[in-house]
Amino acid sequence: MKEALIGIAGLGTVGKGTLDLLTANKVKIETGLDVSIKVKGLAEADQNKFKGLKSLEDCSLYSDAFELLDDPSINIAVELIGGETVAKSFVKQAVKKKKHVVTANKALLAKHGRELFELARENGVLIKYEASIGGGIPIVKALQEGLAANNITFVAGIINGTTNYILSEMEKRTLSFDSALNEAKELGYAELDPSLDIDGFDTAHKISLLASLAFKKYFVFENIFVRGIRGINLTDVEYAKKFGFRIKLMAFTRPVGKQFEITVEPTLIPSKILIAHVDGAMNAVSVSGDFVGHTLYYGQGAGAFPTASAVASDIMDIIRLSSHKTGNFETDTGQSVEKGSLMVGGGVIAREDIISGHYLRLKVCDEPDLSTKITSIFIEYNVKIERFFQESDSDGSISLVLLTGACALRNINQSLERLGQLKRLKEQPVVLRVETEA
Amino acid sequence: MKEALIGIAGLGTVGKGTLDLLTANKVKIETGLDVSIKVKGLAEADQNKFKGLKSLEDCSLYSDAFELLDDPSINIAVELIGGETVAKSFVKQAVKKKKHVVTANKALLAKHGRELFELARENGVLIKYEASIGGGIPIVKALQEGLAANNITFVAGIINGTTNYILSEMEKRTLSFDSALNEAKELGYAELDPSLDIDGFDTAHKISLLASLAFKKYFVFENIFVRGIRGINLTDVEYAKKFGFRIKLMAFTRPVGKQFEITVEPTLIPSKILIAHVDGAMNAVSVSGDFVGHTLYYGQGAGAFPTASAVASDIMDIIRLSSHKTGNFETDTGQSVEKGSLMVGGGVIAREDIISGHYLRLKVCDEPDLSTKITSIFIEYNVKIERFFQESDSDGSISLVLLTGACALRNINQSLERLGQLKRLKEQPVVLRVETEA
Repeated sequence: MKEALIGIAGLGTVGKGTLDLLTANKVKIETGLDVSIKVKGLAEADQNKFKGLKSLEDCSLYSDAFELLDDPSINIAVELIGGETVAKSFVKQAVKKKKHVVTANKALLAKHGRELFELARENGVLIKYEASIGGGIPIVKALQEGLAANNITFVAGIINGTTNYILSEMEKRTLSFDSALNEAKELGYAELDPSLDIDGFDTAHKISLLASLAFKKYFVFENIFVRGIRGINLTDVEYAKKFGFRIKLMAFTRPVGKQFEITVEPTLIPSKILIAHVDGAMNAVSVSGDFVGHTLYYGQGAGAFPTASAVASDIMDIIRLSSHKTGNFETDTGQSVEKGSLMVGGGVIAREDIISGHYLRLKVCDEPDLSTKITSIFIEYNVKIERFFQESDSDGSISLVLLTGACALRNINQSLERLGQLKRLKEQPVVLRVETEA
Repeated sequence: MKEALIGIAGLGTVGKGTLDLLTANKVKIETGLDVSIKVKGLAEADQNKFKGLKSLEDCSLYSDAFELLDDPSINIAVELIGGETVAKSFVKQAVKKKKHVVTANKALLAKHGRELFELARENGVLIKYEASIGGGIPIVKALQEGLAANNITFVAGIINGTTNYILSEMEKRTLSFDSALNEAKELGYAELDPSLDIDGFDTAHKISLLASLAFKKYFVFENIFVRGIRGINLTDVEYAKKFGFRIKLMAFTRPVGKQFEITVEPTLIPSKILIAHVDGAMNAVSVSGDFVGHTLYYGQGAGAFPTASAVASDIMDIIRLSSHKTGNFETDTGQSVEKGSLMVGGGVIAREDIISGHYLRLKVCDEPDLSTKITSIFIEYNVKIERFFQESDSDGSISLVLLTGACALRNINQSLERLGQLKRLKEQPVVLRVETEA
């Protein structure tokens, strides 16, 4: 029987989870593949993390991840170091030494994917990253293989558990953003510095990868529109509910003409559609294709074990895709799923040009014929008001909550600017996207 | 560039859809795989179906599917004939002629899978069947590859669009079963003879395949417990709703001790869980694994285009998994995903021994202390009544609706038998399974 020799760099939560999985389900994995698997090396800067590991036969422990790569017998290098500096050098070194790479590092691939995938292609090895999006949900595989015969027309996702937990709890238990965030921290869903999650960047890393998978193009990460949930007010969560919507931090990508939308922003979606029922820290990705229609993939988006499931499935894929004719897992580069150098850069449409419905909450002075006057200004800018709700505030002003028909954000912004010039707005208005399908 | 030469047998809805897809998305498929694909032969007994096909360059038309197999250049045979007789011979012939097979035929594989997969293994070819379960949803791939590192602990599915449409409409619009069925027929969801769908056998074929995929064992199709939705009464749909449940035709499979549950039956599931929101003709499969936790896959379960998406993805997989080193798509049998001969038969647990909650609707005579008397009989058989609702009927009798705690169906049956002996039941009771997770 042939042997797959694995090196794991980084023994944080996911690293330990992966080790647990490869130990617990070793026989199952080996039987399925008819290959023996062995963890040959572990690298971790923090030596304390080696304590308590079950003794691994013939497994070398390194404090320096690059030393692990010096073992020529290791044919699969698992990068779970995180970050973009050491991790990037590690992946590049591994690839140059003709080792296949498995990583869960979305930030790294979102920003440096082009360089890394092209390097992998030149060296005839694979970089697999199922674990980087949606935890154990096999969404990368669905896009690369299961739906490969389709032109992808739309991808929408709830792909950050922390923000989904916060928004779900705000709605369910009428909590303020701050209370829900504090709770998420206490439960360990949110980091002490939760910015990467809350401000949407983690979601942006993932939708960037999903866009590349869906459209076979590289995108410049900085071109992605990112808006997090820090500004979301319970008031808006409750108005949304009243209108039959829920607010979710949605990531979208789709072709728009010759460009592509890639956006991350809090969005009102109808509470009756399936993805609106994705609650708590769960993740889901909707994918539509020209033949398959609408599909959806759901599961735990994070955590040691679900992520380990994805890492291990990538390891199995490498073994499966590697030539069985040679003992050392050489791949035919023609089989490389990432046809790096064939992919070109894709243009990203400006956020202002994206067409959608909008939710607006405006604080205005009370006056006769208020709704007619406001509506007429929106009409000037081709914004159709579809639903209108007004409520008197304790300070004598009026809160107007509007749902618009589909139009570009540009038109909304122009309307609001005009309302500002007319001194009708007493506060900065709240503007949120509305999508009826996701 | 190498060429994949495809023969398609059967030009019904799915056959035509597949041809449409392979024509429309040819360039996309070829670019992704770096292989040229060509439909080399089409077989269809009904010659009228050849009319109106766009001229296929170098494509031979056959009235006899077996003649198509005589073309030695065809390396992938797509079986879309349906049924279990001609289709079975066709698949066997194709395999013996060392052609890979793609099929959408769940009945064939559920009943003859063992024979066919073992034959394929002996001949070093693949039989792929993504299209046979859940239309275009890549659920076979998820089980075979995406979740391959997990021990699967539970699979639950809504995998028949017709019955799901009927049950959804009964609830949404308070329709009787017959009205909803007639509507499904008019919309083309249900066949003129809808028995295969309505009586649960289509669902049973699919859960049988899912069980084999999940547990790597063959099961005798006749051992699967199958109950369709013909007996489902609007009254029970409405009582279920009142209790916070929806009735769905659920398929379940899971290990129970050394045996396996494989069942198909109408089941009450909580209306708040995700799969309860799978409405109309849509399908969904829940899969839980020891590491990945709970995942769910959703999409159109039938139709020409979604099914064609799955057929084409199987064709692409064969090309991907076939050795690129040879021109004619020989596979290394070691890569065969179906390790047929390594799989053994699995035992199926008797339905009466399966433990679940139950919904019971009993028609009884009115009498003092009714609830105490009835409850005490259930307690004798270790059945705990968790919720109790009673309503007077116009004929002076009482309708009792009960939800029980988890117990074996055997205990329920014994309790009801006892109630019958005591002459307390005025009608055959309604017994439905209740599952709180799916």
